[in-house]
Amino acid sequence: MEGEFVLYGAIEAGGTKFVCAVGDRNFEVTQKVSFPTRTPEETMNKVYEFFNRYNLKSIGIGSFGPIDLIPESSTYGYIKNTPKDRWKNFDFLGSLKAKYDIPIGWSTDVNIAALGEAIKGAGKGLDNILYLTVGTGIGGGAIIKGNILEGVGHPEMGHIMIKPHPDDKFEGLCPFHSNCLEGMASGPTIEARLGKKGKEICNTNVVWVYLADYIAQALFNYTLILSPNKIILGGGVMKNMYLVEQIKNKLKEKLDDYITIPPINQYITTPNQGDDCGIIGGFILADRVLKKVCR
Amino acid sequence: MEGEFVLYGAIEAGGTKFVCAVGDRNFEVTQKVSFPTRTPEETMNKVYEFFNRYNLKSIGIGSFGPIDLIPESSTYGYIKNTPKDRWKNFDFLGSLKAKYDIPIGWSTDVNIAALGEAIKGAGKGLDNILYLTVGTGIGGGAIIKGNILEGVGHPEMGHIMIKPHPDDKFEGLCPFHSNCLEGMASGPTIEARLGKKGKEICNTNVVWVYLADYIAQALFNYTLILSPNKIILGGGVMKNMYLVEQIKNKLKEKLDDYITIPPINQYITTPNQGDDCGIIGGFILADRVLKKVCR
Repeated sequence: MEGEFVLYGAIEAGGTKFVCAVGDRNFEVTQKVSFPTRTPEETMNKVYEFFNRYNLKSIGIGSFGPIDLIPESSTYGYIKNTPKDRWKNFDFLGSLKAKYDIPIGWSTDVNIAALGEAIKGAGKGLDNILYLTVGTGIGGGAIIKGNILEGVGHPEMGHIMIKPHPDDKFEGLCPFHSNCLEGMASGPTIEARLGKKGKEICNTNVVWVYLADYIAQALFNYTLILSPNKIILGGGVMKNMYLVEQIKNKLKEKLDDYITIPPINQYITTPNQGDDCGIIGGFILADRVLKKVCR
Repeated sequence: MEGEFVLYGAIEAGGTKFVCAVGDRNFEVTQKVSFPTRTPEETMNKVYEFFNRYNLKSIGIGSFGPIDLIPESSTYGYIKNTPKDRWKNFDFLGSLKAKYDIPIGWSTDVNIAALGEAIKGAGKGLDNILYLTVGTGIGGGAIIKGNILEGVGHPEMGHIMIKPHPDDKFEGLCPFHSNCLEGMASGPTIEARLGKKGKEICNTNVVWVYLADYIAQALFNYTLILSPNKIILGGGVMKNMYLVEQIKNKLKEKLDDYITIPPINQYITTPNQGDDCGIIGGFILADRVLKKVCR
């Protein structure tokens, strides 16, 4: 295939918006569109409209979840038990396969962002990368020796349990676990606590102390369980660099040299592929499924 | 090498006892000795005395930790900051390499037990295996697509944070984190709470409620972070099958069908290589380092 012009498709399917893109063999974006996530029919029609214009070799999908990743399962390729009712039990992979007779890779939105950052972004060259996104929800993906960490399903790292801060009276937003990490530290918890969005809240507000504590607790546990070489913090809430600094300080305090990590500014970073990391990961997934590297 | 008689050595170096063994190409134990862990000099002399009798092709070591696993580090192969003072900064791998000019693999005691169970034991054929040992300490090792999960170091899964049970007034034994999982749920916490060993405590004692809750909390977090196909529970405390059943019940309750796992008796099991799983993992490590599969 050396020298041939290869065109990959990528879909980053989020709960609020879809991004579709095509890219070249270097995983560079050549075209990109974005539209809001509406009903499956309306949304998928926009996907087809975009991809129909290209002669793709393969496609990589990263979808909001939970999704079925088990090839032996009768609902492999489906979106599962999502609060977005119209998408529940939607056969995402099957719908796309019915339209395009090419190899299609299938994973979560967080996993392809992790893959993009691990292979081409801030984690390049490292064996064990954790990508955590903190935004409307909280999700994590790990890339171990270049492969997406999966097993019985995909990780749901945003829903781990944390210790409530003694001064924080908030009861949590997660419909499944109330006060899990996502329930206590996602973007919407700021508005639920204070009636204003994070951008409007100044850095001295105690809400940042709570969020920094909860996210640092999670990073502490992820560090002890996964032993990553680097943790990359993405998502809207992590655009507040003051908060990121507080998280680093709290994590250092909690680790207290019990285990040796690289200097904290090397260990904890933000994505260097910006908002394109998911799409780039989608191209990488497309490339792998084309080369059958991916199982 | 087909047909040739290959002899592997394995060392399972625990904080209280050392087990040394030699085995064949099928990773079957042919000879095994065990002796208490005393000073490095006295203990290593017993190791050499045993191995000197054989013409080994390679050796796999699993050592109590924390240990230095980073090949680029100046203290690679050393035991690091252990409470066992005489062993602190002991060059374990280097000492053995000075005696035997053969390939030697190096990992933690928990990791080789995980490897033995994943490759030849209860996790055979599965992609993603978590092995947790609950005894004098608590440690976990994960085997992902056949490889030991490592990164910036080795996992320290026993030291994750958990939520204290509201009725449990115990403050925890961990010298580093007080009330982390190990500090609240290891074997010695039973004696510290009740003045008697676990074997002497009947199943109706509330201490088992606390331990089941803490270990189930940890399994919940490990499940969400690693997404293993199976979790294998080893170590002395897990020989109480009543406790294991309570842990399964609590974990099911916490997961509450939020994510799909296999039937609980398939998902949570005990080791099927018994106390030999570490030694078998040591042979596998020896085999890999011989074949340079291991980096």
